[in-house]
Amino acid sequence: MRHLLSAADLSLEAAVEILDTAEAMATTQQRTIKKLPTLRGRTVVNLFFEDSTRTRISFEAAAKRLSADVINFSAKGSSVSKGESLKDTAQTLQAMGADGVVIRHPASGAPYRLAHSGWIGVPVLNAGDGTHQHPTQALLDAFTLRRHLHTAGGAPAPAGTDLAGARVTIVGDVLHSRVARSNVELLTTLGARVTLVAPPTLLPVGIDGWPATVRYDLDAAIAEDTPDAIMMLRVQRERMSSGGGGFFPSPLEYHRRFGLDGARLRALPDHAIVMHPGPMNRGLEISAEAADSPRSTIIEQVANGVSVRMAVLYLLLAGGDAAAAPAAEIRAAAVATEGNAL
Amino acid sequence: MRHLLSAADLSLEAAVEILDTAEAMATTQQRTIKKLPTLRGRTVVNLFFEDSTRTRISFEAAAKRLSADVINFSAKGSSVSKGESLKDTAQTLQAMGADGVVIRHPASGAPYRLAHSGWIGVPVLNAGDGTHQHPTQALLDAFTLRRHLHTAGGAPAPAGTDLAGARVTIVGDVLHSRVARSNVELLTTLGARVTLVAPPTLLPVGIDGWPATVRYDLDAAIAEDTPDAIMMLRVQRERMSSGGGGFFPSPLEYHRRFGLDGARLRALPDHAIVMHPGPMNRGLEISAEAADSPRSTIIEQVANGVSVRMAVLYLLLAGGDAAAAPAAEIRAAAVATEGNAL
Amino acid sequence: MRHLLSAADLSLEAAVEILDTAEAMATTQQRTIKKLPTLRGRTVVNLFFEDSTRTRISFEAAAKRLSADVINFSAKGSSVSKGESLKDTAQTLQAMGADGVVIRHPASGAPYRLAHSGWIGVPVLNAGDGTHQHPTQALLDAFTLRRHLHTAGGAPAPAGTDLAGARVTIVGDVLHSRVARSNVELLTTLGARVTLVAPPTLLPVGIDGWPATVRYDLDAAIAEDTPDAIMMLRVQRERMSSGGGGFFPSPLEYHRRFGLDGARLRALPDHAIVMHPGPMNRGLEISAEAADSPRSTIIEQVANGVSVRMAVLYLLLAGGDAAAAPAAEIRAAAVATEGNAL
Repeated sequence: MRHLLSAADLSLEAAVEILDTAEAMATTQQRTIKKLPTLRGRTVVNLFFEDSTRTRISFEAAAKRLSADVINFSAKGSSVSKGESLKDTAQTLQAMGADGVVIRHPASGAPYRLAHSGWIGVPVLNAGDGTHQHPTQALLDAFTLRRHLHTAGGAPAPAGTDLAGARVTIVGDVLHSRVARSNVELLTTLGARVTLVAPPTLLPVGIDGWPATVRYDLDAAIAEDTPDAIMMLRVQRERMSSGGGGFFPSPLEYHRRFGLDGARLRALPDHAIVMHPGPMNRGLEISAEAADSPRSTIIEQVANGVSVRMAVLYLLLAGGDAAAAPAAEIRAAAVATEGNAL
Repeated sequence: MRHLLSAADLSLEAAVEILDTAEAMATTQQRTIKKLPTLRGRTVVNLFFEDSTRTRISFEAAAKRLSADVINFSAKGSSVSKGESLKDTAQTLQAMGADGVVIRHPASGAPYRLAHSGWIGVPVLNAGDGTHQHPTQALLDAFTLRRHLHTAGGAPAPAGTDLAGARVTIVGDVLHSRVARSNVELLTTLGARVTLVAPPTLLPVGIDGWPATVRYDLDAAIAEDTPDAIMMLRVQRERMSSGGGGFFPSPLEYHRRFGLDGARLRALPDHAIVMHPGPMNRGLEISAEAADSPRSTIIEQVANGVSVRMAVLYLLLAGGDAAAAPAAEIRAAAVATEGNAL
Repeated sequence: MRHLLSAADLSLEAAVEILDTAEAMATTQQRTIKKLPTLRGRTVVNLFFEDSTRTRISFEAAAKRLSADVINFSAKGSSVSKGESLKDTAQTLQAMGADGVVIRHPASGAPYRLAHSGWIGVPVLNAGDGTHQHPTQALLDAFTLRRHLHTAGGAPAPAGTDLAGARVTIVGDVLHSRVARSNVELLTTLGARVTLVAPPTLLPVGIDGWPATVRYDLDAAIAEDTPDAIMMLRVQRERMSSGGGGFFPSPLEYHRRFGLDGARLRALPDHAIVMHPGPMNRGLEISAEAADSPRSTIIEQVANGVSVRMAVLYLLLAGGDAAAAPAAEIRAAAVATEGNAL
């Protein structure tokens, strides 16, 4: 693996390796001193063409815990907004010593172009591109699911395990959601069965070719599929308010038909978990009761996001040896630095 | 002490402990290598819902000198501005591994809510909330005062000392000032006597209950109270220009009646110091002559702000042992790292 | 050297010392672990009154590779924009522990004022002021030129060498260009001969006093001067579109007369290099063919910018001993830390 561009690029083996490495990273996050020296002297650039404080901070925290230097490059107010090409921006960053570029871009495919155009020679990590992909989100969701499939409380999952047999229901605006797209690909690679629930107007053309079952009735989906996890997609209020023709239902109508309220929460199997990529619109796609219920893993997902991003940064940037025995090496490093602070 | 939310929460003992710890921190700031390893591997998040470059940078410098990682989270352009709740933002930050949250918020009480709602389990430091509190500002002011009460030049104050007997005059827009409110509480806890000078329209309802004398005539206050320190509050020009009814005097009128000009400067006792929380409006609440006079401690206050914030971060984040013997431990750490750079 | 304010302040010896030190810094940038411990515990403040992501990031990367803490202070949205004086801002930063201030300012002369007003006692580095100076840009250009003068591929230049005999042609909006101004001064100090090519409306009053030849015809300049390097200045599109009277030619006209297209590229001597300070307007002052040709050093310039800024930060901030034997000390430090990461 040279880059992380799309969940579709990950083989079952590659995905499991990332999840296992992330479990090792999660261990180090339990310590008082959360830092590993692994990427000391390397520079990670967060190249964000779109605001996304949440994702940017998660990558920043992950890189800093590996002791990398982080440089945040927001395209707003920069020469990029004055018309500099992505190529020139990218080459500039590499020339300044970037050892890896985390890119967020409104245009689907921009990270792919950056990685495969020959412009730069360092790993590219896709932090979300248009309506296309958000692979680290899918990985953190898979990580969270894997933990809860094996133990009710979400304890660390056994190494090497996948998601064979898990049933996951994804609900909402699939059409515009890179989260849905990435999750369908990664979860099915890992052996899960995915159901998508959405109004017909919020499903993409070509949905028939996706490796997922499509439903239009959330109550029926819950009752008949008995999912192990239900994942509520964020509604973009901007889209909703655009009005004009009813592409989107009204907020009230949306919540009534596709929101996870108390009744639907109670209709889920007892062991089922409630997921959301955040930030939530409480009262719209998810009620406060569901968001704050004991079966909600929404906060765990955020924590797991840092572990997964540490794993990906480590595997891509730590050099050729990294792939050999990541988890063992990380644990050793954790031990070696245990006594290092005052 | 679990959090630092209000100057009113600090007992005399707690306040003196912070000031003593800050003196130890100030010592390390004299060295070429200003870093202590105390918070290595911890993450401090600056969660700013209001612009305040000055306060943000002071906390950032303080945290970095303790070797913490710092993540700046500006609520502008983030999901917060898209309607995410404070609760969800806070839980997200903790899940990402924040070991402490420094919060600045336009709503009075927001830090209290964050700390006492059960949402998160890490220390919360109030960096200014509405017109309510700014406790580290009061602490740095007390620190500065304590130094000048004991020696004319502002040398380090003896450990364990308070402000018993000191007379402090605070001048200006008390109504909107969290700085005034925090200072009245902390200074009186430390034994000082405070006089407030303001036009009646700029005093809050309930001022009679404050542990301070209120006056309306600055010249009389200087002549009769012979203060050890005079603290000029910043005028918010936005408020002034609102016009419409005379809540605020005009700038010229304000300067004439409540500004610290050369004549008033010379009317102060010889040993009195001139304080201002910054940033100053030269020519409005303070003349250039007063701001730049040898008795001005305005720049010292800024430097002391870093020491005080280091002390607070240390006491709140360094764990249970920290409270035991902070000053001694810090001095030891300083010595231990003395030879550490190239 | 206490500050770096203007290329005009650099003697031949001082300039060569910086270039030699930058060569040592460049060596360390080839390593996996790009960090030197030289400025550990020091704080570098980037005080930017103008957006310039590119320059800010270059200084930030340079400071971090020397292990300094970096605090970015953007004047936008800060008290500066509320009318705080440069003096108060500067004194605040020093009081917070800044060991050096990198300043970018729209007003020509602001860095000089900051350094020589007695306000602060730390080194000031000019990162671009108005239409006046951008000395680190001139240094990185000189560094790049020096490498290519000695070896065709741009290998490290021998220590102690200057640019005696080199012929450099600078093309474009000289009137508004601090890059042109800085380069003319530094390149001539180093022994190069400079030709400026521009339309008469884009040359400053007093150009006759500059130590450079002025021409109006780019094709003649290339044919008759046979330059070793051609440096294309960035066109500010804002200026172009201002219209109204023809201060500036139209974009098409500009490209036809002063742009570096394929024909002019081929008319250059075989060994000549193509330089640009970035960010480029492809198709305006430089064609894609020229920008991407093997003789373009545009990306090298960016990389060299980090080395040069490391050198300057090191020489100004590392203390009295630094000047003695910088290159040797840096190489030693590089070796000493070679085995330091996991």
